[in-house]
Parts: sequence; C-alpha cells; structure tokens
Amino acid sequence: MSKTVFERQHRIRFSECDPAGIVFYPQYFVMFNNLMEAWIDDMLPEGFEGLIVQRRTGMPTVRLEADFRAISRMGDDVTLSLDVMRLGTKSITLAWRCTGKDGDLRMAVTQTIVITSLDTHLSIAVPDDLHAAIEARMAAAA
Amino acid sequence: MSKTVFERQHRIRFSECDPAGIVFYPQYFVMFNNLMEAWIDDMLPEGFEGLIVQRRTGMPTVRLEADFRAISRMGDDVTLSLDVMRLGTKSITLAWRCTGKDGDLRMAVTQTIVITSLDTHLSIAVPDDLHAAIEARMAAAA
Amino acid sequence: MSKTVFERQHRIRFSECDPAGIVFYPQYFVMFNNLMEAWIDDMLPEGFEGLIVQRRTGMPTVRLEADFRAISRMGDDVTLSLDVMRLGTKSITLAWRCTGKDGDLRMAVTQTIVITSLDTHLSIAVPDDLHAAIEARMAAAA
Amino acid sequence: MSKTVFERQHRIRFSECDPAGIVFYPQYFVMFNNLMEAWIDDMLPEGFEGLIVQRRTGMPTVRLEADFRAISRMGDDVTLSLDVMRLGTKSITLAWRCTGKDGDLRMAVTQTIVITSLDTHLSIAVPDDLHAAIEARMAAAA
Repeated sequence: MSKTVFERQHRIRFSECDPAGIVFYPQYFVMFNNLMEAWIDDMLPEGFEGLIVQRRTGMPTVRLEADFRAISRMGDDVTLSLDVMRLGTKSITLAWRCTGKDGDLRMAVTQTIVITSLDTHLSIAVPDDLHAAIEARMAAAA
Repeated sequence: MSKTVFERQHRIRFSECDPAGIVFYPQYFVMFNNLMEAWIDDMLPEGFEGLIVQRRTGMPTVRLEADFRAISRMGDDVTLSLDVMRLGTKSITLAWRCTGKDGDLRMAVTQTIVITSLDTHLSIAVPDDLHAAIEARMAAAA
Repeated sequence: MSKTVFERQHRIRFSECDPAGIVFYPQYFVMFNNLMEAWIDDMLPEGFEGLIVQRRTGMPTVRLEADFRAISRMGDDVTLSLDVMRLGTKSITLAWRCTGKDGDLRMAVTQTIVITSLDTHLSIAVPDDLHAAIEARMAAAA
Repeated sequence: MSKTVFERQHRIRFSECDPAGIVFYPQYFVMFNNLMEAWIDDMLPEGFEGLIVQRRTGMPTVRLEADFRAISRMGDDVTLSLDVMRLGTKSITLAWRCTGKDGDLRMAVTQTIVITSLDTHLSIAVPDDLHAAIEARMAAAA
C-alpha cells in the first residue's frame, strides 16, 4: 500500500467542538487548511507565507466534496492525511482523510484548488517550483 | 420562479476574511449553519436550542458538495438562501446559495443532514413537528 | 440614564458555543469586533471596509480588560452595546457590554484600540472624519 | 531565571490571520485555550477531556487582562508559554505570553479561571489531583 503524500497527528481540541461535544464540521476544513499550509512549508523554502505574502499567490478552493462517516470527539487522537489526486497546470485536486487511532475513517474530502494572483484574483499557472516539489512528493509516495 | 424556502441578508465581516481579504472558505459553512439555525428558530416554537438541548436531537452533516464560483470580499452584502431538495424520513438534503447584490452566484452547496440522538449519536427519524413544518415551508415556496 | 453609543441585538448561535453548551469566550471578542465594524459602517459612508482596504488603516487592540459575570447559552437573546470611554488623538478606549434580556450583565470589556497604517503597522492619528463622527455620537448619547 | 510552567512552539497559521495579514486578536485566546488544554493533558492521566466530559468539570474565565505589544504575522514562529500566578482553592490565575523567535514579547495575558460543575455552572473547589499536579509543576519551575 502506498504512503500518503503528507500527514500529521492531531488531537481534537475543545475549541474545535460544538455543544454536542463533537467536532463542529467547519473546523475540519480549518484543520485541513492548516495541514495544507504545513505541507507547503515542508516543500518550499519560503513556505506558505512566502507564496501568499511575497509572491501574492493565492490558492482558493473551487470545488469540495466531503463525506462524514463517523464523529470525532474532544480529545480524540486523529491522523490528518493528504494525497494528490491530480496535478494540473492551473489546478490541484487533493484528497484529505481524517482517521481515528484504529485507522477508522472519520471524514474524507476531495478538494480542487486553483492558483490565482492575489492582485487580480484571476487564475494563473501552478508555480514551477511548487509543481516540481509536488511531483517529487507524489513519486516518493507512490 | 419559485421563492427560496428561507433567506437572510448578510454583510461579509472582517472576522470572516483571510489575509487575501476574501472569505476564508470554512467561514461559509459557519454562515450556513447560522442560517439553518435561524430557519429552525423560525419553524419550531422552542427553536434550534430546544431541539439540541431539550430534546437532545442532533443534525450532523453526512455529505457536502460545494462549488465556489466567485470570491466574496469584506463588506460585501450577500444573500444567503436555503432550499430543501429532499425531505426523507431520517435525512434532509439542503441546497444553499450565497449570491451577491446583483444576483451573481458566489457559492452553492448541497448538504445532506441526518437526525441523531445526541445521547447515542445514532440516526433517528426526523421529528414529526419538524417534518411537518418543513413540508409546509416547501409547499409555500413552490 | 444616558443611551449607549451603539448597540445591536444578537442571538447566541450554536457555532459560538463550546462542549459545555455556553459561549466559548474568544467568540465574545468576535461578536464585539463585528459590532465595532457595524458601528463604523454606520458612521462612515465608505464603512469599515473602506477604512481597512481603501485607506489601509488598521485598528489593532493594544489593551483589553474583560470581566465575565454570567454565562450565555446557545439561543439566548443578548444585547451587545458599545460606549466610548476616551477618544484620543491616536487611540480610542471603548467599553463593551453583553447583557441578557432582563438587563443582567453577562460580560463587560474595556478595550483600547490604536489607529495604524497597514503599510507600516505604525501608529497614526485617528482620521478626522472618524474622529468627528465619534464625537457626534458621543454627544448624541450623552 | 525560572523556567515557565508550560510552553509550546507554534507557527502562526493563515487561518489565524485577518485581512491585515496579522493575527486576528481573538485567535490568541483560542491558541491559549489549546495550550491550557495541552497542559492539563500533560498533568492528568485522563486529560482535559476527562475533566470536561467524564467529571463534568468546567474551567470558565472570570477575568482577563491582555496587553498587545507587537503584531504577529502569518508564518511567524512563536512561543506560547504559561505560568501560574496564583493557585487558590476555587480559582487559578494564569499568566500567558506569546513571544517571537528573538524573545520579543508579542502579547501577555493574565487570566483568572474558576472551577465549576457543568451541571449547575456553580463554582466548586479545584479538584485535589489537579491542585496537586499544578503545585508540583510550580515547584519544578521555581
């Protein structure tokens, strides 16, 4: 079985849970955004901050599909993982998963991101260095 | 053209925007959750709070599809609207839209919610009064 | 008794509450930030968005004191109010209150804000039009 | 110089920043709440989750003073630290600090927390095991 391209352990926090004591679902997308940021920090010397602030390059979401299979409760230790389903010239499709300690799937997301100029908010090509770094990670995980 | 089942005006707030100056996408789901809550407050005398706290009835999301068509910026006046695509015995499928002042679509979501007991987190039937209220709203909007 | 300078009704939302079923306290500061934004929208034709985006003028907090007297629960209808304690040349001290339906105080905050250039993040004078508008509101409420 | 009682490294995330590109100040309180949770996880075998969910023991804030000295930007590596100023029978006063890489102070908070029953929301004594664990940490850091 192939490895995931990127993953991190995470403990579900009080601040991520709702009055039902389980993850308030928009918080999953915050967790995944933080994971994507850590992944880009790991691939580019200047990090996600460099991409956004120095290069004025945005990564907005254009399409999202999420399946919620099981609840996560405060204090649960979960694995947040990321795979690349498709690396295009102007867009990237990611597959995210949140799994429990026993590998039980809590939630799965397919998300398509485009690269934009933050000055015009128009679509641009995936930067060469980012494209190459993602290809390398995909090859390593295959 | 039929009316929407429920809608509210909303001004995009600073707190909902990211360093790119546009809505941080997980915040859309918070807006829509607040809209669903206002809708249930409007349908049941005891409101969403009564459903959750007194009746211990949850409304977790099991499936979500979102398309992001155009950005929303801080200060934009948008309409958040809700329609019911399917009212089942144990689940409800909603269609959400965020549109700008000129009716331009910013974002559209299809979301399937199930009804659960907050004691067992297991699926239960849509409560009779809620089912009847939703049917009445659907008929009025048709 | 003098009126408050600005106030809004607010219903405590599910998304603002924690697993204890009460407001997660950082959410109070989000509520108050939204209130300040609505107040500035009400005072300046170009609104808060114009101040931040067009004029590149920030309003960071430098000092905050908060007293939490009673809890607020999901579904509670509260009044969020704002008064100006001190209008300086470079800073503004605000007094916020969250009160329940019977006027019972839930939380009170004293917050000092400075005006900055968002290009340098250095302190600048309160803009003339904002200064004049605040003075007019203070006089009207006195 | 004494050590702090508890500290963690943290990289400021995109999701924590506002349209000015700096930490949206309510997010500092979320960071500190997560830090407190990690600290209690470190002191009690059952963790913060056990305290809240199993024992139905809450830790609401009653008083907060915060000084914001310098901004933190997206991507900044900061240290979040916690010290105990006072350990009472029914309340705990904490001192938080957020410092940059060079030890420059970004923000400091003094926060008084009380222990409550989540069934009655009334004040109770600090649990014996928590009281003893905090005393031990204070002694170790002195």
